Amino acid sequence: MFYHDGKLQYHVRVDKPNPQFAKLLQQAIGGIEGEMRVCLQYLFQAWNSRGPQKYRDMLLETGTEEIAHIEMLATAVCLNLEGSSTAVKDEMVASNPMVEAVMGGRDPRHILSAGLGAMAADANGVPFNGSWVVSSGNIAADMHANVMAETTGRVLATRLYEMTDDAGMKDMLAFLIARDTMHQNQWMAVLEELGVNQTYPIPNSFPESLQNQDVAYKFVTTRVDGDSMARGRWTEGTSIDGKGIFTVEPGVPVGGVPKLSPADKEVHGQVEQGVRPDDGFIDKVKDFITS
Amino acid sequence: MFYHDGKLQYHVRVDKPNPQFAKLLQQAIGGIEGEMRVCLQYLFQAWNSRGPQKYRDMLLETGTEEIAHIEMLATAVCLNLEGSSTAVKDEMVASNPMVEAVMGGRDPRHILSAGLGAMAADANGVPFNGSWVVSSGNIAADMHANVMAETTGRVLATRLYEMTDDAGMKDMLAFLIARDTMHQNQWMAVLEELGVNQTYPIPNSFPESLQNQDVAYKFVTTRVDGDSMARGRWTEGTSIDGKGIFTVEPGVPVGGVPKLSPADKEVHGQVEQGVRPDDGFIDKVKDFITS
Amino acid sequence: MFYHDGKLQYHVRVDKPNPQFAKLLQQAIGGIEGEMRVCLQYLFQAWNSRGPQKYRDMLLETGTEEIAHIEMLATAVCLNLEGSSTAVKDEMVASNPMVEAVMGGRDPRHILSAGLGAMAADANGVPFNGSWVVSSGNIAADMHANVMAETTGRVLATRLYEMTDDAGMKDMLAFLIARDTMHQNQWMAVLEELGVNQTYPIPNSFPESLQNQDVAYKFVTTRVDGDSMARGRWTEGTSIDGKGIFTVEPGVPVGGVPKLSPADKEVHGQVEQGVRPDDGFIDKVKDFITS
Amino acid sequence: MFYHDGKLQYHVRVDKPNPQFAKLLQQAIGGIEGEMRVCLQYLFQAWNSRGPQKYRDMLLETGTEEIAHIEMLATAVCLNLEGSSTAVKDEMVASNPMVEAVMGGRDPRHILSAGLGAMAADANGVPFNGSWVVSSGNIAADMHANVMAETTGRVLATRLYEMTDDAGMKDMLAFLIARDTMHQNQWMAVLEELGVNQTYPIPNSFPESLQNQDVAYKFVTTRVDGDSMARGRWTEGTSIDGKGIFTVEPGVPVGGVPKLSPADKEVHGQVEQGVRPDDGFIDKVKDFITS
Amino acid sequence: MFYHDGKLQYHVRVDKPNPQFAKLLQQAIGGIEGEMRVCLQYLFQAWNSRGPQKYRDMLLETGTEEIAHIEMLATAVCLNLEGSSTAVKDEMVASNPMVEAVMGGRDPRHILSAGLGAMAADANGVPFNGSWVVSSGNIAADMHANVMAETTGRVLATRLYEMTDDAGMKDMLAFLIARDTMHQNQWMAVLEELGVNQTYPIPNSFPESLQNQDVAYKFVTTRVDGDSMARGRWTEGTSIDGKGIFTVEPGVPVGGVPKLSPADKEVHGQVEQGVRPDDGFIDKVKDFITS
Amino acid sequence: MFYHDGKLQYHVRVDKPNPQFAKLLQQAIGGIEGEMRVCLQYLFQAWNSRGPQKYRDMLLETGTEEIAHIEMLATAVCLNLEGSSTAVKDEMVASNPMVEAVMGGRDPRHILSAGLGAMAADANGVPFNGSWVVSSGNIAADMHANVMAETTGRVLATRLYEMTDDAGMKDMLAFLIARDTMHQNQWMAVLEELGVNQTYPIPNSFPESLQNQDVAYKFVTTRVDGDSMARGRWTEGTSIDGKGIFTVEPGVPVGGVPKLSPADKEVHGQVEQGVRPDDGFIDKVKDFITS
Repeated sequence: MFYHDGKLQYHVRVDKPNPQFAKLLQQAIGGIEGEMRVCLQYLFQAWNSRGPQKYRDMLLETGTEEIAHIEMLATAVCLNLEGSSTAVKDEMVASNPMVEAVMGGRDPRHILSAGLGAMAADANGVPFNGSWVVSSGNIAADMHANVMAETTGRVLATRLYEMTDDAGMKDMLAFLIARDTMHQNQWMAVLEELGVNQTYPIPNSFPESLQNQDVAYKFVTTRVDGDSMARGRWTEGTSIDGKGIFTVEPGVPVGGVPKLSPADKEVHGQVEQGVRPDDGFIDKVKDFITS
Repeated sequence: MFYHDGKLQYHVRVDKPNPQFAKLLQQAIGGIEGEMRVCLQYLFQAWNSRGPQKYRDMLLETGTEEIAHIEMLATAVCLNLEGSSTAVKDEMVASNPMVEAVMGGRDPRHILSAGLGAMAADANGVPFNGSWVVSSGNIAADMHANVMAETTGRVLATRLYEMTDDAGMKDMLAFLIARDTMHQNQWMAVLEELGVNQTYPIPNSFPESLQNQDVAYKFVTTRVDGDSMARGRWTEGTSIDGKGIFTVEPGVPVGGVPKLSPADKEVHGQVEQGVRPDDGFIDKVKDFITS
Repeated sequence: MFYHDGKLQYHVRVDKPNPQFAKLLQQAIGGIEGEMRVCLQYLFQAWNSRGPQKYRDMLLETGTEEIAHIEMLATAVCLNLEGSSTAVKDEMVASNPMVEAVMGGRDPRHILSAGLGAMAADANGVPFNGSWVVSSGNIAADMHANVMAETTGRVLATRLYEMTDDAGMKDMLAFLIARDTMHQNQWMAVLEELGVNQTYPIPNSFPESLQNQDVAYKFVTTRVDGDSMARGRWTEGTSIDGKGIFTVEPGVPVGGVPKLSPADKEVHGQVEQGVRPDDGFIDKVKDFITS
Repeated sequence: MFYHDGKLQYHVRVDKPNPQFAKLLQQAIGGIEGEMRVCLQYLFQAWNSRGPQKYRDMLLETGTEEIAHIEMLATAVCLNLEGSSTAVKDEMVASNPMVEAVMGGRDPRHILSAGLGAMAADANGVPFNGSWVVSSGNIAADMHANVMAETTGRVLATRLYEMTDDAGMKDMLAFLIARDTMHQNQWMAVLEELGVNQTYPIPNSFPESLQNQDVAYKFVTTRVDGDSMARGRWTEGTSIDGKGIFTVEPGVPVGGVPKLSPADKEVHGQVEQGVRPDDGFIDKVKDFITS
Repeated sequence: MFYHDGKLQYHVRVDKPNPQFAKLLQQAIGGIEGEMRVCLQYLFQAWNSRGPQKYRDMLLETGTEEIAHIEMLATAVCLNLEGSSTAVKDEMVASNPMVEAVMGGRDPRHILSAGLGAMAADANGVPFNGSWVVSSGNIAADMHANVMAETTGRVLATRLYEMTDDAGMKDMLAFLIARDTMHQNQWMAVLEELGVNQTYPIPNSFPESLQNQDVAYKFVTTRVDGDSMARGRWTEGTSIDGKGIFTVEPGVPVGGVPKLSPADKEVHGQVEQGVRPDDGFIDKVKDFITS
Repeated sequence: MFYHDGKLQYHVRVDKPNPQFAKLLQQAIGGIEGEMRVCLQYLFQAWNSRGPQKYRDMLLETGTEEIAHIEMLATAVCLNLEGSSTAVKDEMVASNPMVEAVMGGRDPRHILSAGLGAMAADANGVPFNGSWVVSSGNIAADMHANVMAETTGRVLATRLYEMTDDAGMKDMLAFLIARDTMHQNQWMAVLEELGVNQTYPIPNSFPESLQNQDVAYKFVTTRVDGDSMARGRWTEGTSIDGKGIFTVEPGVPVGGVPKLSPADKEVHGQVEQGVRPDDGFIDKVKDFITS
């Protein structure tokens, strides 16, 4: 169960409201790199958690913290939209239409749909999409999804930090950037606990003998001349999981040319596509339906 | 530029066509864990690549290989759909409706829309979504996105492996599972090249002094009693990036209660919401439009 | 069946074409508050209508009227786009780039994809989404969905009215705003016919004795100190449906800590997550498939 | 800021796990009538709230409660998925394939993507969509959106109640159905506080004199014979808002036939569509770009 | 403006209700090949029409007819859902679970969300998407979009025809299939009016001399050995538009290796990606914002 | 299997980087008229191809070429974004904010999410959607889908050509426009090979005698006065497929008023909607589940 106190986790102050910056902040709310995604991702991972209790607890802790981050950002959007229609805009008329060119304009739906409030959408107004909420049932895969979310999230936050000179906004972003630092470290700490050699390849519960061992540590080059220019740690030495040796090899199509049967009569391709002798299957189905 | 030879990278053989398994395979084509995502993700990362040439080359290599994986899976879907309408189904009538219960039925659009072919959609027929293609402009964030994609992808492939007893399908999946092993190792090898202490926190080009250092290595507990039960590697010792010490602390709302101004008159909230004195902004805008 | 006469229900006149306003108008066509939603919602509710014939008739009447509203708005978009590329823009160069800042720019797809025509999308170019079309099979729930659509729709129309000084556009919007007034009243009139005490809680066909009566009229506070600051009509007196008395009570987690079983072996979590003894289920399924 | 205690608001017990019912429950999590929508809708409305503080407080209270509802339902999904792969299924083989026919099969992504966990998606696996989160900036419109969400939500919950005979699931649903009763009453209580005559038409801050009064209380029939069969409370008597008299009138197309200009040359319609004399606008733009 | 008479354009009769067939019919309502798409596509093309009036008239005629087709199909869904819960299902228990296997199960949202009504979604419950509504502003491109819609639509309808043995449903589908025949011919008749040589390449208003004539009639083979196996009408003879001669040639990458600059400092790639000397642009922007 | 050489099919040169033009180019990458759609459409059609081998080969050829087109356009986006933050912008401040007004602003996600790289999205940032990938299993329907894609694609490319004066961009677009010319001709060449009279109506494998012949060549007018103003090739003469004679006739609703049964008790409409006598079906289902 969840509780609230109506207060913000950290200061949210806007010195000069700026509706274009409100638009940019939406990416950190409802974008794929944003807080709605990490919040729901950690909560769903917690609720779906099977295995050691401490991981469920930890996910619930941080998932709950992230609700407060959405709250901070939504408040920041509201503050950037209010009053903005006056003072700042007046200056803008006089001197700096260029800002618009850099920023990409304000989101018209901040007025039309939200009446100067935040939305569950990204910086282009594209709605938040539940498909981004990853909870795979595999703790190591989930941790990688979380590291990934926090790295793209911190990259986003630093870009937002660069795009504003509002001291209040910079202060808020410096807080969120630091929390992303912690969370990157946090999910990587779980992976360290699990151990590299023991963890990979993920999932580690699938017997490695069942995979096609011939190609498990082979860098396949698809260069048309077969001579890869992409050499690095991944083309030589022991593999990262410690279970193989990296090699390089040109891709060869051992699978041959695929052969499909002619089209079934019942799905009505063109007659020129050929027709398999009628096997009466559809009729059989119809008999069942109508008998 | 790209080339093809019309052959499959590896054998795709279906001994007993099974339209329900065709539906499951769609997740590996057009699902968020699927091959369309990794293929396009690696190609866009390559095309957008700035910095050392070898990373662009490497991404292009593997992105091109993944096209062949979509090709293999699309062929597997086609083969599972063909002929399936007869022999296997006849057995099913007699003995095992339960299979249906486990598998969740076939995708009707495999008949209605695709005429027994593969689609750019997941196992529920939800279309592939371009938002899943991550290319952030930060090589380390991108590598984490790639590791994540390959871990959830390999988890998916092992589950598909469990769901079939078709020797041909198991052979194909054992190949794909092994390639996922390589690719997990490959992206981690790049991260190893970049180095842990040098790489984190990502992005490493943002001056750490600008983040709020007080909270950068602090595990914030949101338990209502302030006493976290989630202890582990992430609550003590040096942080993973080697730049801080993990501590635990209850969350405290230092931000206070947010205060928003009354609604602007022009966005037409209810009068009960209060109205800010008319500042004439909209009129000013209209003057511009109509002058 | 449906008929047309090729004429507009009301005047659509644009005195000064304005491509940015065309973009804003798109919200009223393909946005969630727009006319495509109400049109299709009323028509689907009519077509799905079970029960008194007069409700089906009424829904069909107004659903058909709404097609004419889409027609008017699409025409308004076209008129705002045409010629706009010349005269108005010339003025703009000289004097008012600020308008752009306020409005958020024009929709590039109005040129690129639609060739100066209207689209089935919102003010940000996000396509109309069929999930917004609510037809629940419960007449009272549907009426609430309709009132909701007309209230957010009228709010949108008044905001558009504020954003333009074009006399023709104001005239058209004054018409649409008035129709929204009628439609708000119309759906509320149905709810009045059904009666408040008889109608709620919706659905009224579910025996109230089967719900958990202890919590049916209790305002649960989730404030961390248990002392709600949100007092009003909803915390005291007879409930609106006349079937209970409003009270306030702190939320208490009577459900305890959830306990999930360890991960199934077959779905390949990590081994660290524990594994339930193999129950052979998947094998059993495979036997069915291959027998 | 938000807190948690890791416990469930109410009992979640599953006596006989049933993966098909897990699929149905997804509609109550990630469907348009589900708890993610109401949770985020109330929270965004709270965060965006301008006007009397008590409404912000109230929205925050109930938005926070709804997180606990998602938690309950996610737990219910997990419990319905676990163990289900064995005992219940064995019975199913023997006796009741029909259940499958009624229920529509299980969601394959519960295995493939979520490893027996809940997802942010509906009963068909269609992801949650942020466009459903309505926060309009108008308190009365928002309340209608909330009533609508709780009515379709309660209808959904009663249907789920009918679809199961699991005593634990019925107990949980009886709790959620009762909370929906409270929440329907709660949002209606706000509307009662605001008052009917004062509230409508929404928004009440737009001067009624500016709307086209001629058509504000007129039921327009679009029947081809002009003789409406849809008579009721909405065609006679004082309007619900007390500000007009309902009348009926056949629709008449006063707007005439729309006239659009020929296609602009620059957007490249076909030459047969006619071309407006080149006004050189695009060239003018290009001059700016290249100067 | 639009009118209705509440009657169906053609008979809709269901002899044996079948909820699985209701699910399949949804593809013809809200699927990409369905009637919502063609209806809205023709109406938007009409409303956006510039050029000869008769094309606008024609599009309005057929767009209006298509509303009646959605109405027929929605009615067919409703009829297939009603009563179905009893008689037919009883038979199903006894004899034919296989039907389920073929059909893919019923749509649970037909019960949960729509209360036995039709939805604005496809056969997998994926919502209708406005992006499918093509209105390009080029009459010839639009006609091709329409032919395409009617060909995939007729293919869908014939597959539905095969999937049922209900005499009423076959009668309805035979009507719709015939209308698709007319509409295929209709849009092709417009193209014939416009003429092949005059029409292509579309758009014909772009001066052909401005395209790269060297590659306008060249079939580029991407076979890795440069020897195309795909010979046909498109590799020899005069081109279809009569303006060129078809030839075949291996693809050659004349564009060379792309060279991108190092990452901008402000977008925070990793330092390993190199940094362009700080040009102070962001600072310049910030000056504007804060001045 | 697929190969690459890391080089561009044609020159991609940007003389004056322009981030707004980068935004416009996105429509040609991830928009419905763009290269991702045609690329994936041709590849899926190839992989799903049943019938003459040469069509599969041809589709694979051109699908592979299209990958190189995405590569070119992604490179063009990158080049338009780089450096752009300085020189060009400086000019813009001084002289031409109007360009912004015409173009609609830059895409903020090009900075925030992609770090100055291309995305799998359209010109409004709406993600690429897999539903656009048409592969119907009918070769003639597929060819029409391909012609349609190339016509809207070429229209888009010519509009982009008009929007830029950058010589490099014009050169690249002149190449792509010419390739669209070839591809329009190519797909039409297949249709010519198949023959008009033999091909239509599509699918030609459905016996024409089974369609409702009465309405197969009848132009139905829905004008409310029954007198169609839309006369042309489609209202007289032999039909295009040579199998009928075009006639005109007013639409008549022969289907009568639809009659639906009262709502089922179990789906909980309102009691006012009437209730069918309880048939005990749901109980029967529950017996199965719990027995």
